[in-house]
Amino acid sequence: MTSSQLFEQIKLKRSFLCIGLDTDINKIPEFLLTKDDPIFEFNKGIIDATAEYAVAYKPNLAFYERYGAAGWNSLQKTVKYIRTKYPDIFTIADAKRGDIANTSAMYAKTFFSVLDFHAATISPYMGHDSTMPFLAYEGKWAIVLALTSNNSFSDFQMLDCGNSGKKLFEEVIEKSMHWGSDANMMYVVGATRHEHIKKVREIVPDHFLLVPGVGEQGGNLADVVRNGMNSKCGLLVNSARGIIYADNSMRFAGAAKTAALKLQTEMEALLKEASII
Amino acid sequence: MTSSQLFEQIKLKRSFLCIGLDTDINKIPEFLLTKDDPIFEFNKGIIDATAEYAVAYKPNLAFYERYGAAGWNSLQKTVKYIRTKYPDIFTIADAKRGDIANTSAMYAKTFFSVLDFHAATISPYMGHDSTMPFLAYEGKWAIVLALTSNNSFSDFQMLDCGNSGKKLFEEVIEKSMHWGSDANMMYVVGATRHEHIKKVREIVPDHFLLVPGVGEQGGNLADVVRNGMNSKCGLLVNSARGIIYADNSMRFAGAAKTAALKLQTEMEALLKEASII
Repeated sequence: MTSSQLFEQIKLKRSFLCIGLDTDINKIPEFLLTKDDPIFEFNKGIIDATAEYAVAYKPNLAFYERYGAAGWNSLQKTVKYIRTKYPDIFTIADAKRGDIANTSAMYAKTFFSVLDFHAATISPYMGHDSTMPFLAYEGKWAIVLALTSNNSFSDFQMLDCGNSGKKLFEEVIEKSMHWGSDANMMYVVGATRHEHIKKVREIVPDHFLLVPGVGEQGGNLADVVRNGMNSKCGLLVNSARGIIYADNSMRFAGAAKTAALKLQTEMEALLKEASII
Repeated sequence: MTSSQLFEQIKLKRSFLCIGLDTDINKIPEFLLTKDDPIFEFNKGIIDATAEYAVAYKPNLAFYERYGAAGWNSLQKTVKYIRTKYPDIFTIADAKRGDIANTSAMYAKTFFSVLDFHAATISPYMGHDSTMPFLAYEGKWAIVLALTSNNSFSDFQMLDCGNSGKKLFEEVIEKSMHWGSDANMMYVVGATRHEHIKKVREIVPDHFLLVPGVGEQGGNLADVVRNGMNSKCGLLVNSARGIIYADNSMRFAGAAKTAALKLQTEMEALLKEASII
């Protein structure tokens, strides 16, 4: 998927919502547990209920690996379901992989050929070897961790580097932006870091930013938009728990729909305010 | 497994060899391809041929995920085979995971409960949240990436941090060493970085170091030992391609055995030289 196709979807759906499919069998409605593949059944319910409001889905791999081979089957079925039924929706493997070059090439093959995701998240610690294999696929994206939404983001990402007064996350963006372009790279910037989103936007004015941490982790949507939106939106804002676990009864899908609609409505207002739609 | 149990194995086998089970279906002997699970059959052959010389096995997850659910089955069977037949051998999930706390907890459960590995490799970029869940398991280990063996290690790991003159990899070790202890944490330091292994050894005199990159990646065993060995060995030196792909005919296992024996013989001499055995 190209960035202009993604932008078209954003304008069409009046939304830049990414839904995190972090599906935990201990949190899904009990009645699903008798199904052959409860995780896939849950995902299908969530996807069908929210597809009109979401421009992207992002399963976190940890939640699938947790169930070994069965979990991988659920993941594979989930991606295939989205890619087949909703081919215009962007799909992200939230894998945070990063390895030496030939090993990263294996990961890229897994996510882009075997599973047919549009994008995968990458941990930058091992340098460009980890990212380059993901950039070799036409229409696919590497989404590099810059500033994460978790509590210990500051352990290393906020270290001062060199004599430049730059933080490590700035070095990561400034170096890695030359490995690809705004046509095949995005950056993860946590919503809870809104004071730094502006800084990131200055460094990469045209890249899409994937922003987790709105809602449950305390990030505020209007702050994210004020600091990070560009003329082509340039944002995918992720929400997981607040949508997928809005209710754990028979009505889980309807509750997810309501929660997604609520966020989409806020996003629509913000897109209008920015004269994007 | 405790560090003294690991040290006992090192003395018993006169070896600190870790074998990387980076099993690529395109590189294994053709006659195995007719088997139900060629990857597992190959691993079994390698393991049985080399178990007397190796103190650890380290499958890299990328090589298994590449085959989706089937690959996870091969991995699960491989770990179970080692844990059952060779319970004294240390097993490492080379996964390089790193995520927010609740997600890292999922990964820890996967590698330590579902798959019963002794250790998993962790990427430090997201800080202590990524590592802590792995330290909650008795007898299990987190192996944090410090200085990797790949070409682009210097993109970020070698950045000067703060005003201290320290490199990022030093900051990673100095900060993370307080999250656990030498009883549940190790560090990855590439064999190709032998000029820095000494530095790492100064910071963490008692921790085990997992050292990839000997052989195929150009690292030299004697250099690694000179700079990194401590009084309890403190090293696990990994070799993958040089052992597991020593031959790709019917005689692959015998050739792997010969290659492992060659490294073990060198290691025995070095352990004697250091008066450890």
